[in-house]
Amino acid sequence: MFTRILSGLVVATLSLLLTMPASARIWDSVPDVQLENLNLSRDASPKELFDALSERYLAELSKGKYAEYWEPIPFDQYLAPTLFYEPPDIDMDVTRDQCISCHEGVTHGWVKSWEKSLHARLDDIRALDSSDVRAYKKDIIAEVEDNLRSQDLLAHDRQLKDVSCIDCHMGVGVDRGNHKDDLRLPDRTACGTCHVRQFAEAESERDTQVWPQNQWDDGYPSHTVDYLANVELESWAALQEREVAASCTMCHTNQTKCDNCHTRHQFSTTDSRKPQACATCHNGVDHNEYEQYMLSKHGTVYQTLGHEWNWDARLEDAFTKGEQTAPTCQTCHFEYKGKYTHNVVRKVRWGFLPQVDIAENLDDPWFEERKEAWQTTCSNCHSPRFAMTYLDMMDEGIKQGVAKVEETRKVVQALYDDELLVGQKTNRPALPDPIEDEPGDFSSLFFAEGNSATIVDRTFTEMWEQHVAQYMKGLEHVNPGGWTYSHGWSDLIKDQIIINEADTQLRAQAKLEQRVSALEGNNGNQANQDSTDDVSMAPASGLGTLLATVQVDPRYSGGGMALLGGGLLLGGLISVKRSRRRDEDADTTDEQE
Amino acid sequence: MFTRILSGLVVATLSLLLTMPASARIWDSVPDVQLENLNLSRDASPKELFDALSERYLAELSKGKYAEYWEPIPFDQYLAPTLFYEPPDIDMDVTRDQCISCHEGVTHGWVKSWEKSLHARLDDIRALDSSDVRAYKKDIIAEVEDNLRSQDLLAHDRQLKDVSCIDCHMGVGVDRGNHKDDLRLPDRTACGTCHVRQFAEAESERDTQVWPQNQWDDGYPSHTVDYLANVELESWAALQEREVAASCTMCHTNQTKCDNCHTRHQFSTTDSRKPQACATCHNGVDHNEYEQYMLSKHGTVYQTLGHEWNWDARLEDAFTKGEQTAPTCQTCHFEYKGKYTHNVVRKVRWGFLPQVDIAENLDDPWFEERKEAWQTTCSNCHSPRFAMTYLDMMDEGIKQGVAKVEETRKVVQALYDDELLVGQKTNRPALPDPIEDEPGDFSSLFFAEGNSATIVDRTFTEMWEQHVAQYMKGLEHVNPGGWTYSHGWSDLIKDQIIINEADTQLRAQAKLEQRVSALEGNNGNQANQDSTDDVSMAPASGLGTLLATVQVDPRYSGGGMALLGGGLLLGGLISVKRSRRRDEDADTTDEQE
Amino acid sequence: MFTRILSGLVVATLSLLLTMPASARIWDSVPDVQLENLNLSRDASPKELFDALSERYLAELSKGKYAEYWEPIPFDQYLAPTLFYEPPDIDMDVTRDQCISCHEGVTHGWVKSWEKSLHARLDDIRALDSSDVRAYKKDIIAEVEDNLRSQDLLAHDRQLKDVSCIDCHMGVGVDRGNHKDDLRLPDRTACGTCHVRQFAEAESERDTQVWPQNQWDDGYPSHTVDYLANVELESWAALQEREVAASCTMCHTNQTKCDNCHTRHQFSTTDSRKPQACATCHNGVDHNEYEQYMLSKHGTVYQTLGHEWNWDARLEDAFTKGEQTAPTCQTCHFEYKGKYTHNVVRKVRWGFLPQVDIAENLDDPWFEERKEAWQTTCSNCHSPRFAMTYLDMMDEGIKQGVAKVEETRKVVQALYDDELLVGQKTNRPALPDPIEDEPGDFSSLFFAEGNSATIVDRTFTEMWEQHVAQYMKGLEHVNPGGWTYSHGWSDLIKDQIIINEADTQLRAQAKLEQRVSALEGNNGNQANQDSTDDVSMAPASGLGTLLATVQVDPRYSGGGMALLGGGLLLGGLISVKRSRRRDEDADTTDEQE
Repeated sequence: MFTRILSGLVVATLSLLLTMPASARIWDSVPDVQLENLNLSRDASPKELFDALSERYLAELSKGKYAEYWEPIPFDQYLAPTLFYEPPDIDMDVTRDQCISCHEGVTHGWVKSWEKSLHARLDDIRALDSSDVRAYKKDIIAEVEDNLRSQDLLAHDRQLKDVSCIDCHMGVGVDRGNHKDDLRLPDRTACGTCHVRQFAEAESERDTQVWPQNQWDDGYPSHTVDYLANVELESWAALQEREVAASCTMCHTNQTKCDNCHTRHQFSTTDSRKPQACATCHNGVDHNEYEQYMLSKHGTVYQTLGHEWNWDARLEDAFTKGEQTAPTCQTCHFEYKGKYTHNVVRKVRWGFLPQVDIAENLDDPWFEERKEAWQTTCSNCHSPRFAMTYLDMMDEGIKQGVAKVEETRKVVQALYDDELLVGQKTNRPALPDPIEDEPGDFSSLFFAEGNSATIVDRTFTEMWEQHVAQYMKGLEHVNPGGWTYSHGWSDLIKDQIIINEADTQLRAQAKLEQRVSALEGNNGNQANQDSTDDVSMAPASGLGTLLATVQVDPRYSGGGMALLGGGLLLGGLISVKRSRRRDEDADTTDEQE
Repeated sequence: MFTRILSGLVVATLSLLLTMPASARIWDSVPDVQLENLNLSRDASPKELFDALSERYLAELSKGKYAEYWEPIPFDQYLAPTLFYEPPDIDMDVTRDQCISCHEGVTHGWVKSWEKSLHARLDDIRALDSSDVRAYKKDIIAEVEDNLRSQDLLAHDRQLKDVSCIDCHMGVGVDRGNHKDDLRLPDRTACGTCHVRQFAEAESERDTQVWPQNQWDDGYPSHTVDYLANVELESWAALQEREVAASCTMCHTNQTKCDNCHTRHQFSTTDSRKPQACATCHNGVDHNEYEQYMLSKHGTVYQTLGHEWNWDARLEDAFTKGEQTAPTCQTCHFEYKGKYTHNVVRKVRWGFLPQVDIAENLDDPWFEERKEAWQTTCSNCHSPRFAMTYLDMMDEGIKQGVAKVEETRKVVQALYDDELLVGQKTNRPALPDPIEDEPGDFSSLFFAEGNSATIVDRTFTEMWEQHVAQYMKGLEHVNPGGWTYSHGWSDLIKDQIIINEADTQLRAQAKLEQRVSALEGNNGNQANQDSTDDVSMAPASGLGTLLATVQVDPRYSGGGMALLGGGLLLGGLISVKRSRRRDEDADTTDEQE
Repeated sequence: MFTRILSGLVVATLSLLLTMPASARIWDSVPDVQLENLNLSRDASPKELFDALSERYLAELSKGKYAEYWEPIPFDQYLAPTLFYEPPDIDMDVTRDQCISCHEGVTHGWVKSWEKSLHARLDDIRALDSSDVRAYKKDIIAEVEDNLRSQDLLAHDRQLKDVSCIDCHMGVGVDRGNHKDDLRLPDRTACGTCHVRQFAEAESERDTQVWPQNQWDDGYPSHTVDYLANVELESWAALQEREVAASCTMCHTNQTKCDNCHTRHQFSTTDSRKPQACATCHNGVDHNEYEQYMLSKHGTVYQTLGHEWNWDARLEDAFTKGEQTAPTCQTCHFEYKGKYTHNVVRKVRWGFLPQVDIAENLDDPWFEERKEAWQTTCSNCHSPRFAMTYLDMMDEGIKQGVAKVEETRKVVQALYDDELLVGQKTNRPALPDPIEDEPGDFSSLFFAEGNSATIVDRTFTEMWEQHVAQYMKGLEHVNPGGWTYSHGWSDLIKDQIIINEADTQLRAQAKLEQRVSALEGNNGNQANQDSTDDVSMAPASGLGTLLATVQVDPRYSGGGMALLGGGLLLGGLISVKRSRRRDEDADTTDEQE
């Protein structure tokens, strides 16, 4: 598909003799389990690793199991280009240099950003003194060149000259192409062609995130499955407003590409190393890590002193050459046992939602080992005892939040089982497929048809999906306000107050209605002739029967009792018997004699 | 009024021969429509332009159509000085130099800030090399000098020496005045005397913002009418707590002065060019552009890399000499077709509230032309196709938000029409003039007397005035969380859940009450003797009448049926007829026979 | 306990002859009232001051009056080390130098931070030119040395060499100790040993904060009692989830140590002088000063221009040598009549909650004097008239907020007194000691058992404890959105809407229930046989009695009226008398005749 003319990448002469390593050995940062899953040995070549990664990557990237329910909108091509990108209808052959010269006019911002990137200035890096904090980038260039040679994308006696538009958007090393036929938006494989190690590390989230009690599916939750996780969410797939759904997708594109964190086209590492690089996605109601961090002591030190730190230092040098005196998102989450890789979930324990089946299994070695890894992380700046004392407190606190949710879940479930949620009998339409009715479902954040979601539903959704998550994040990021009454715990309590009050009120309301119905039954009033309730009348069988029936069946909150004939006014008495049928939509047959 | 001694502004000799341009020509940044509205040709002099602008400006700046309802409080003199400023009672003659020397003691911060301003250091600018990124300021000084000469405020052979306290606070070029009689707080005309072009550009918002379907009044919404827009708001004018009203005014002072954006007394352009310059006003519940921007990719790049940009570059050089790699508020909103002016609403399409009559007219050329102008703006850094694809998605998304609001508006209106809002019949006092009762009115953000606003009212106000605005701003500022479940869409859904639930509950409650009333009527019970409801009893006219009445009149939610005399207990039957009178506060007369 | 070998602190030779001042005189920044309270004259030595301060400090620092209700968790030892710290079980003798060398391996972050601190580089300070903005630190070193000499912790002919781990963690000047027996976490006395003046200033909050009408206890609210204030809060002491309680404690540790503001181990003054230093605690729902400030004009100037300011300048030089053009938290709150000290509450007027007994006493000289002190503060950059006009408006605005709260308090109290809160009769369990039942109690932020807190309670708690506080903070920090509809006033109005609606609805609900009960009574229906209400029936005593009872006793919202026998249907009449027993869980005995 792409014509690769390798000379385009080359400087005229090389004073160094460059050779492939005698024995290619996959980097240690690529975990054993990943190599196993890819059926590779550690002696595999970069090409073999890249090929295996790419194959798996492309196989996993799809519209997902709910594909039938949704169609992409035009903007989706920029969010999941591998699946949907269509080049613009510009049928012209272009050369490597023409990209730049033409786009300097059309979209000069691209070119300007790229000019500031290292991609455009590889020789500037090569010229760095070894004492320079950025000198490690020289090794990265050499590594990339090795990767390309392994893939026959760079001659063994040549160097990369630069990384230009065409390398990413048509193919590494090509020097011409057709703007319509050959143009692509880079996905992980495009970046991964050069950056094989980082590609492998990032993709290894799929391999290391395997929960001991199957709390989540393999690889979940992680950046490397975030696109699929999104499109396989019932509410997302069912949403008719696809432009709203696109807002979810906007963040769920780490699986599809690399520029969520590495902002195109400057790809500044300063940018990527700062907490704000994570902020566009990791903010808000159920994953407010950014807010939590920024108001923690860690974050405030970043805010007051961060300008004095050397952001050119790589993460592993952050606290030494980088002069950092407080952690960032990156220094904690990219680290595992002292090594920094692009597997960002290597120490995940609670995921982004605290759950019972995690809370109950924290003494499993899988969790214990990760907790100890956290202790090591914190011990960069805190004593190991301090670290573990905090981690213990954090776990205990999270469990208490989980307990609040579970306590309240029972109340919600009982209301639902008793069919007492507002409108549950009369006005709770089914939501579009593939959503199924469930009290407090995630869908209450997106759908409101009639009483498809009630205040109880919505409140509980916020409780289990947002507030307890925020509460946990507050604990995890050492932000006192985040887990106390500023937000955290206090929000859970508020949810519980609302739901407990609804519980009392809805039950009282149902009871009062029964009493009124009973009265109507007794005196034969026809006050409620337009009732739509599921009420049937049975032959009079005495008042005791009537009352017993009414007392045990609190299902009717919306309407009233059956309407009786005028005879009642004359002193007659007709008892009613309420049907116990659960068919919510069944038409009522009033039986009467 | 002011003695203008021009020599005060002058340096001793001028090596340059300064002449008025042979043919004064108004700057291109002043739009044709504005000149037409001002009855000026493009050959008008700066003086003619300034005079025309000032005359119109002063004519438009008033207490507005609700002037009779409110009186200024003392602090208002600082917010609308043209209308209300009273100099302090300090009757002393002062000279140009005395301002500084005295205030160095009294309010040294003023003097210190001014000393850092370019106003105090014009020669530093004049000495700049033409390659300096700030060299454009030399042209601005020359332009200002031309403007002053045109107004006979600067001799033709003299230069401005500096801009000192007295120039702005007593009159440009005067060198003495009386602290009591002559002191003024600068309004737009004071700054506009020197900065005629910027004055004209800012004032042109009044001229260019003319909606094709009269969605807003001419010039609305814009900074150049923001004071009037505020004081002509019913709720603002009616508010008894004038100190609370002042908080609205605090931001609505772009019409009255220039220092909302150009912070006195340093008037730093670095300050004005950064997003935070907009933040004091453009944050919060219904215009949270700042928050939306800061968490967008655009904003996070500003946060991570902005310190590397050159803020001395003027806006049109931002992406070149300024080294910017992401937009700020200013680079997008001051731009129109590649030019940057102080007309900040030149590309406005949705205003700050999405409305049906905008949503339905987006294919009008007026809107189309502005959309294309946006495409040009985005194409600084994005491909035109990408830009338009996003803009299309944005429009579509906003329409969906509008639809949600309209869907819910119907529910609210029906509740109001059926008089079912809580307390609507019994405890919904009129609010102070000029506010009129309307469900979900803006006033529910400011007033709560009895049930003058109910949860339904307030929720709907938040929906149409805040949440859908925030949702739109999220889309417009490319902040995924801002238009999805972090805030945006999810908040609209929550509003709808609350209102739909109220709808079901209030109707059920009314129906239950009717049934109870019917029962009371039937068996002659006097259970509700202390009822305050608007209920009158008519002579018995048969049960059918009673029931029909009850069934069709669901207006009484708060109280109960009339209380009948003891005779009823003895077995008699008196039917009741509920009055349909709408006098909400009328005392009830129980008629009985 | 500690071996103090003074030679460890000394440099070999001293060219200066250092002597104790002929007459030690306590610094002017230590207020008279404090010296009086400590029974010291101004001629006391630093040692005498330190000893008196320490004695009082240790006497006041305890588990507080609710000590019996709670036990510390392990993490508490880091929050209140004076009370709870237990050194780790590492029984080894260590020297001054070994701390550093060993911890470079174990917790290198500590060492790295310390190396950046001035504690590690005293000679760098001593070498500063007197024109350096940091030259004032030379005086601080000299002052510290005097303090140590006064306490016999430094020989009179020696200088401090550095301040190393061991000085703070084992004892100033010791050069060896046992890691198990001698280790301590520094509290205020540890830092105060060297920094006697700052210790005294900070502790003087206890002495100057004495309210004229006893609005708060002596010294409250202030940083110097913040630990006690926390642990003596009923809700805090009662909370079973001690890990949640710890989140409150996290901030309430200014009383116990100094590193909330002076971040260990760099102790950067740049860090401490920036607004973010206050942010970790002063954010959130009831003390959101940080948010208010950052979005005020003051805060936005800090955000746009703060990077140009010289943060090495001490606070009193901030607006001169520091080049600041806008205030920070520190420049306003550490200042009093032109002097800057560590007493941060010297100008407090409203505290952190606006209250009636403050609003009514603002003309007391105590308040007036502090208001004038604020006027002086603002006059750094504003005219005194402008400042007082704003302060007047602010006070007036706050009073209006207080009025809204009090208006609503009456509604809540009446609902509570009438026992109409949801579940109040049936499901409002007592909360753990020492919490007592009160409507709208602070505990509703932390506890939700059954209907122990209702929506009315919670809403009112948010109103008086959070929203009115935020509203006030908005006014105080000149953030328009903060006191208008973005948050402030509008939130108070929303609270009132919710509570007024509940008032109408709960009373209507009670009345309807009474009517139904009356109907049931009349027709002898036993529809409510399973009622759990506290209802007893008395012998018939006439209809008047019945109705009077029903009218004056609206306590039963959950259940209904008494259940009457079938005889009623036959025309008989049985009156009921409702029991006024408060036993909420008592079984109901229906008495009937």
